[in-house]
Amino acid sequence: MMKVEHIGIAVKDFNNSIPLFTRMLNSNCYKIEVVESEKVKTAFFQKGETKVELLESFDENGVIAKFIEKKGEGIHHIAFAVENIFEEMARLEKEGFIILNETPKKGADNKLICFLHPKETNGVLIELCQEIAD
Amino acid sequence: MMKVEHIGIAVKDFNNSIPLFTRMLNSNCYKIEVVESEKVKTAFFQKGETKVELLESFDENGVIAKFIEKKGEGIHHIAFAVENIFEEMARLEKEGFIILNETPKKGADNKLICFLHPKETNGVLIELCQEIAD
Repeated sequence: MMKVEHIGIAVKDFNNSIPLFTRMLNSNCYKIEVVESEKVKTAFFQKGETKVELLESFDENGVIAKFIEKKGEGIHHIAFAVENIFEEMARLEKEGFIILNETPKKGADNKLICFLHPKETNGVLIELCQEIAD
Repeated sequence: MMKVEHIGIAVKDFNNSIPLFTRMLNSNCYKIEVVESEKVKTAFFQKGETKVELLESFDENGVIAKFIEKKGEGIHHIAFAVENIFEEMARLEKEGFIILNETPKKGADNKLICFLHPKETNGVLIELCQEIAD
């Protein structure tokens, strides 16, 4: 794991949250992207080498809608950049962590991603992500 | 706000969590520091320009003990590095954010810190921190 690539934050409504994070972070949202497979819209801000990724569900049964229903708005996950996601998944499995998806899937922002089960990580949902080469 | 300085994670027991994060992050805890005023021990890991800060309460009435009682272990706050905490507090107050402590206080890791009220930040507890000059 090389750096914190992004911090994912579950929000109810971009119309409220994008202006709010723009004012708070004192920088502009530079990209909005839909991830159909996860039923979310994502909005990105950059701070140093890390992105703040707001997540709004467009489906009431989506994972972010369910998260907000249960816990309210707030931090959903931390994503670490890795050089080789397959090697890192193998290393973490050997260390006893549980990978939520057996093979990496396509996430937002041109990334291959996977998640670690938060029961094994002190309640923190951890994402690994690897930039997909052009 | 310049970068994500650290991510604070509330944990019950360093004896379990420090080895766990060492294995997960594949790097060693490089410092443990007690912050008496907050009734916590802090343990630091570095990933790129961001630190992972584990927080263990040493007082059952401390803020981290209360957090875990209510929400369980997990991400407690995100801290952004600022150049001038007084200027940034003034800017954020003008933007309608609520600062939880009127004047900055001394935090872990040689920092002046303050927190924003999470009711105004989509449920995310935000810390500002400025390195104290030697």
